[in-house]
Amino acid sequence: MAETTDVVFAGGGIIGLAAAWEAAQRGLSVRVVDPAPGRGAAWVAAGMLAPVTESSFGEEALTRLFLAASASWPGFASRLKTATGWDTGFRACGAIAVALDASDRAQIDQLLDFQHGLGLEASRLSATDCRSLVPVLSPAVRGGALMPGDHQVDNRALVLSLIDGCVRAGVKLTSDRVVSVSLDRKGAATGVVTEGGEIYLAGTVVLAAGVDTPAIGGLPEGVLPPVRPVKGHVARLRAQPDGEAFSHTVRGLVHGHHSYLVPRADGSVVVGATSEERGYDTTVQAGAVHSLLDDARLLVPAVDEWEFVECIAGLRPASPDNAPFVGPTSVPRLLVATGHYRNGFLLAPITAESVATYIATGSVPPPLDAFPVDRRFPAARTGSDL
Amino acid sequence: MAETTDVVFAGGGIIGLAAAWEAAQRGLSVRVVDPAPGRGAAWVAAGMLAPVTESSFGEEALTRLFLAASASWPGFASRLKTATGWDTGFRACGAIAVALDASDRAQIDQLLDFQHGLGLEASRLSATDCRSLVPVLSPAVRGGALMPGDHQVDNRALVLSLIDGCVRAGVKLTSDRVVSVSLDRKGAATGVVTEGGEIYLAGTVVLAAGVDTPAIGGLPEGVLPPVRPVKGHVARLRAQPDGEAFSHTVRGLVHGHHSYLVPRADGSVVVGATSEERGYDTTVQAGAVHSLLDDARLLVPAVDEWEFVECIAGLRPASPDNAPFVGPTSVPRLLVATGHYRNGFLLAPITAESVATYIATGSVPPPLDAFPVDRRFPAARTGSDL
Repeated sequence: MAETTDVVFAGGGIIGLAAAWEAAQRGLSVRVVDPAPGRGAAWVAAGMLAPVTESSFGEEALTRLFLAASASWPGFASRLKTATGWDTGFRACGAIAVALDASDRAQIDQLLDFQHGLGLEASRLSATDCRSLVPVLSPAVRGGALMPGDHQVDNRALVLSLIDGCVRAGVKLTSDRVVSVSLDRKGAATGVVTEGGEIYLAGTVVLAAGVDTPAIGGLPEGVLPPVRPVKGHVARLRAQPDGEAFSHTVRGLVHGHHSYLVPRADGSVVVGATSEERGYDTTVQAGAVHSLLDDARLLVPAVDEWEFVECIAGLRPASPDNAPFVGPTSVPRLLVATGHYRNGFLLAPITAESVATYIATGSVPPPLDAFPVDRRFPAARTGSDL
Repeated sequence: MAETTDVVFAGGGIIGLAAAWEAAQRGLSVRVVDPAPGRGAAWVAAGMLAPVTESSFGEEALTRLFLAASASWPGFASRLKTATGWDTGFRACGAIAVALDASDRAQIDQLLDFQHGLGLEASRLSATDCRSLVPVLSPAVRGGALMPGDHQVDNRALVLSLIDGCVRAGVKLTSDRVVSVSLDRKGAATGVVTEGGEIYLAGTVVLAAGVDTPAIGGLPEGVLPPVRPVKGHVARLRAQPDGEAFSHTVRGLVHGHHSYLVPRADGSVVVGATSEERGYDTTVQAGAVHSLLDDARLLVPAVDEWEFVECIAGLRPASPDNAPFVGPTSVPRLLVATGHYRNGFLLAPITAESVATYIATGSVPPPLDAFPVDRRFPAARTGSDL
């Protein structure tokens, strides 16, 4: 039997790693169990930090969470850089939404009205404005909107920084997969059991295994919240050998399709993202590669000349109301932190802080307390509406 | 100074490997110098053996070469299999050409007339015939033609078989790059000099370095024939886990674009190919990936659901008249075997036999003798007309 820690995390994706690092920074002894930390959905993600663009009709409480999450990012990135010396690629780059046809334009205008109604910072752009900000945009772009508060982080740089930060802070990274939670006679969590047959005891167990969370066993029925996989393909292109190809994240509406291009400091561009309900399948499909490139080249014709580096697919952990599940469950000493869907990177720092605060105080702080893990949903929603 | 051999090949692509194996089979001592045998254009190629589909107006002599080359394939594949035990994936699968619009249909009909004029085996197919032969074809296919004599080989299986065959036959595979030919006082070739600073002496030097052939130094001006790189992108998809997804190679005309899908026995499908004049660049471009998938999914809608395995690019060694350069040069004891352009796999056995025969007899046998290495061209042709 291995050494007991204060906390054990099942899952070392962006949420598990961020929360483990935060907990270790606060003096807790921490273990993360994951067969390949950071190599799941976190490795595929584009790393957009987009509280404004991700705001949606009917999800005002979620938008407030996004804004609070965004506010915690600069401090988090700065603390991590100080702790490790690595640059996470956090950049306050702003984003522009652009429309390719009149219907796309009308949709962006509606979103602008909604954003202004919530007091969000966003301004209408003419077609000329769009091309002044991002000269590579197609002449076909009809106009759009500027969201100066939507930023980005380099997903892979962040993952590697967090792993390094965890190691420096004494977090034990255990290469194995959690298959169940162990409970004591009173039904409280005592640790995790792994595929490799090990038991890791801990004062608190946090399930942060993304889409694999609901498959973790050993628990009474109904303890774990409903999380389903929403597959996303992302392509990585290289526009130039070095230096960002353009400055703002571009979020396009392409004849009703959502598309984005995120420029990295190294000259690469992340193009996303498809959204598919196909269970746990992460096969890269030719139709998705085609669709990503089809939309991207309509937004930015130069895409045709850019290097195609890779296309990979990951599984976003989606919840019925698109809000995450962060906090205690009905099993004592068992927390969950999953369901972050399209916003795992945006929500990672605030989730990490909330998990650490709950462990210290027994309460989930606002605004994450607005989304209790055991909240009920009016009816089954199986499809994504985004 | 290394041991002298009867023959040294500069380049171990499909031509160098096939000729080296053939020479060794005939009792010669052989060395092949290549930094990565078989990993250039041969690794990218689809492996189509298509004397009929590749026949073109004005290239009747070349078509006769293709037919002779095709006739040598079954014996070559059989001998290689006997020697190594490996299956090269040579399959007498036949090919169908299919048309997506009326103009494509008219073009295939014209080609059929030309093929019939040359006595080639090809027959017109209705749209229903096409879908009977290849049920995955789009309902939009307008009809086409059947070329029962166009076959395929698995390019990578063949390359690996040839490497194994060479090793078994005592061929020395030297991982280095030839930079120049060494000459004696009378100007005859004595061996090759490598990037690594070695000299490999041989009775005969054969330059089979594909598009890198013209860069080989140490020779008087005008000795080496004009070969230029024509870039081609190929995508590899997986249609099903095992067993061929359909039986015939599909060659599509998609609104004037040439596209092909080659089904492999393992359930994968090779999709090709672009044709670009971009010098020695082998970067995979996003526009090429898009274009390959764009055409393939119009021919076979199920492509969208297939796994995208990879897209890579290679450089075809093209000559001004699309015919290869195989035989002696003005430098004694120096042969070349390059310029095979789109038909390196089809022409590999006949090229190998001709090189071995030349070394034994001092003559290039027909029909390759119709294309002497020092033939002159009426005017510079820099673009591909295919």
